[in-house]
Amino acid sequence: MRVDIDRLMGRIDQLAQIGAIEGTRGNSRLALTDSDRDGRNLVRSWMEDLGLHVTVDAIGNVVGCTHSDSASSPPVMAGSHIDTVATGGRYDGVLGVLAGLEVIECLQGVELKRPLAVGFFTDEEGARFQPDMLGSLVYVGGIPLAEALSITDADSITVGDELDRIGYRGSAPIPGPVPHAFVELHIEQGPVLEAEGVTIGVVEGVQGISWTELTIEGQSNHAGTTPMNMRRDPGVVAARIAVAARETAHGNVATVGSIRFQPDLVNVVPAQVTMTLDLRHADETVLRTVEQEMFDFVDQAARDEGVKVSTRQMARFEPVVFDTSVAQLIEDKAKALGLSTRRIASGAGHDAQMMARVCPTAMIFVPSVQGLSHNPAEHTNQDDIEAGANVLLATMAELAS
Amino acid sequence: MRVDIDRLMGRIDQLAQIGAIEGTRGNSRLALTDSDRDGRNLVRSWMEDLGLHVTVDAIGNVVGCTHSDSASSPPVMAGSHIDTVATGGRYDGVLGVLAGLEVIECLQGVELKRPLAVGFFTDEEGARFQPDMLGSLVYVGGIPLAEALSITDADSITVGDELDRIGYRGSAPIPGPVPHAFVELHIEQGPVLEAEGVTIGVVEGVQGISWTELTIEGQSNHAGTTPMNMRRDPGVVAARIAVAARETAHGNVATVGSIRFQPDLVNVVPAQVTMTLDLRHADETVLRTVEQEMFDFVDQAARDEGVKVSTRQMARFEPVVFDTSVAQLIEDKAKALGLSTRRIASGAGHDAQMMARVCPTAMIFVPSVQGLSHNPAEHTNQDDIEAGANVLLATMAELAS
Repeated sequence: MRVDIDRLMGRIDQLAQIGAIEGTRGNSRLALTDSDRDGRNLVRSWMEDLGLHVTVDAIGNVVGCTHSDSASSPPVMAGSHIDTVATGGRYDGVLGVLAGLEVIECLQGVELKRPLAVGFFTDEEGARFQPDMLGSLVYVGGIPLAEALSITDADSITVGDELDRIGYRGSAPIPGPVPHAFVELHIEQGPVLEAEGVTIGVVEGVQGISWTELTIEGQSNHAGTTPMNMRRDPGVVAARIAVAARETAHGNVATVGSIRFQPDLVNVVPAQVTMTLDLRHADETVLRTVEQEMFDFVDQAARDEGVKVSTRQMARFEPVVFDTSVAQLIEDKAKALGLSTRRIASGAGHDAQMMARVCPTAMIFVPSVQGLSHNPAEHTNQDDIEAGANVLLATMAELAS
Repeated sequence: MRVDIDRLMGRIDQLAQIGAIEGTRGNSRLALTDSDRDGRNLVRSWMEDLGLHVTVDAIGNVVGCTHSDSASSPPVMAGSHIDTVATGGRYDGVLGVLAGLEVIECLQGVELKRPLAVGFFTDEEGARFQPDMLGSLVYVGGIPLAEALSITDADSITVGDELDRIGYRGSAPIPGPVPHAFVELHIEQGPVLEAEGVTIGVVEGVQGISWTELTIEGQSNHAGTTPMNMRRDPGVVAARIAVAARETAHGNVATVGSIRFQPDLVNVVPAQVTMTLDLRHADETVLRTVEQEMFDFVDQAARDEGVKVSTRQMARFEPVVFDTSVAQLIEDKAKALGLSTRRIASGAGHDAQMMARVCPTAMIFVPSVQGLSHNPAEHTNQDDIEAGANVLLATMAELAS
């Protein structure tokens, strides 16, 4: 049994017409806008066309299930999101939702032990309302519903008011019913699979994230009159930290994405530098080691230069480890389909990491051309989309048997 | 013979009342403002009180001379400026002018072979009208008068209109009469003399300056999904350059005062970084070597990371070498007064470097507490001011004998 790739690509293309960014293949469907509503209505109509029981919960998550009572009969669930960033691509999130729908359509008439479900979660991107992954966070009881509904966008409009406005404040229970298992197909949003010529990424988990803001205070001085050995230059310390971050990643990633000098003038040794440090690793123990090494380096560099460093933790999330048996099943099914595979940790956040709190969960990645994402030029080749959807089909069919 | 330090400090204090910054000991007398006019009027009145022949030239430079015809009888000249930056100190420039006045007052009645003169030049700071050292540049014929008069400030007001408005567009010839010699006493504006416990800096010249803006273009990427070995990160290259600049100064100074990331976000590898490189050296050959080493480093770092670097020369001035016999005379006179001395190159620009184009010139530095300058907290101890003024007195007396 194989997915109908033309049907799947047709639906992806039809959804991409809503919030299309002119002159590109990309989309702008920020969460709970009119475009998001139109997209929701379209996908919900497809769920209903398949005869699924569609529920909308109080944070606007939409789930279509082959069984009317998913609480008493936990389904094997697929899903992701259909909201996008302001200049997004057509596959990010959408692929996991519409491939799940395609899997359910393929398995219609096949006798299975468990129901099947597909859902899309509200505001995964966090581009309009922070935090990201808001809908799935509420679905698993991660924050109180009232708190989520009162979150505001940049114009002080609340999630709750926008749900009312677009007609998506539903009545299904929060937290949502716990599935038997959850599988999310997603584009990689990174360059690894394409670079290695691998079709299927078996996602074992999501990297832990450590974000720190460093404020380095030195002594502003005249660039012409202050000898090098008498300087307390926070810019040099920031530069040393950025170079060290490149060298301390321990096989994963470390990034200095922001550096700001004050006063930021060609002929003045800066008084103060503010910079960020983004450290990630799939293994919490290693992530702590990387943090410790970097902070030790920062302390030493500050002492060497005679500057003062203060730190502020901007974010800290432990790695998420997906279910090993679901990941193994994905790998087995991909190999049985003759597809190349690679174990991989997700560098970005996904709804699956929230679902992993309540049920066996894993993800399937397919290659992103040039690793591009959050960009209208985001692209995944059709063969890879087909391969990923077929792995999802085989995995869900087995989990439901 | 010694200067009258109380008289000198009294005049410095009186001038500092004009454009005083409340709650500080600092001054704000931007060039050709009302405050500058009031300061000019005060200093001119002191020149006239001493019976000096005062001339004002077409760019507003004011010179008081003991002889009515300085062209036929070239004077030994002291001088500097009385304009300040917006948040300036009370000694920067002022010391050289008022100490020159004090020297002339001390030498009244002493028979000398040559006349004495003291002047203050227009817009030395360049804080309102660029370039800096404008008045002395015009005095030595460095740029045409008409060009200088048409320079505008941030509000599009011209130098010429402001000279008319404050009554300082004079009729003395441009270029100005060439002195027999020029000596400028100035605060160091750097920390070297204080740190070494030396009272008199014998200034041998002004460092050459090389300013370059580097624009580094890489590939913006997701900080979580892009492996380190697949990045083309202009931020890392900028950091390596800043660290290398610290190590490549060759006994002088090198500064990265400005770094700007785009898009400058915690979780995005930057697409582009713009940074500045300020290299200085008193020896042109060494300055060229430093430039070459830095640019070679930039090229190699760019190749290693796979980024593209473009450069723009913002400024390039060759070093100025002062007259060795005048410098030697300063050193001899300081030692004869029992003062500690040190040869030093000026890191900042001064009117003396313009005068050095036309006559034997050198400078005397006195210590700046904590190296502070262009700051209301700028300070030089009275003993050091007295020592510097006495060296100026002895030097001018000998040059005029």
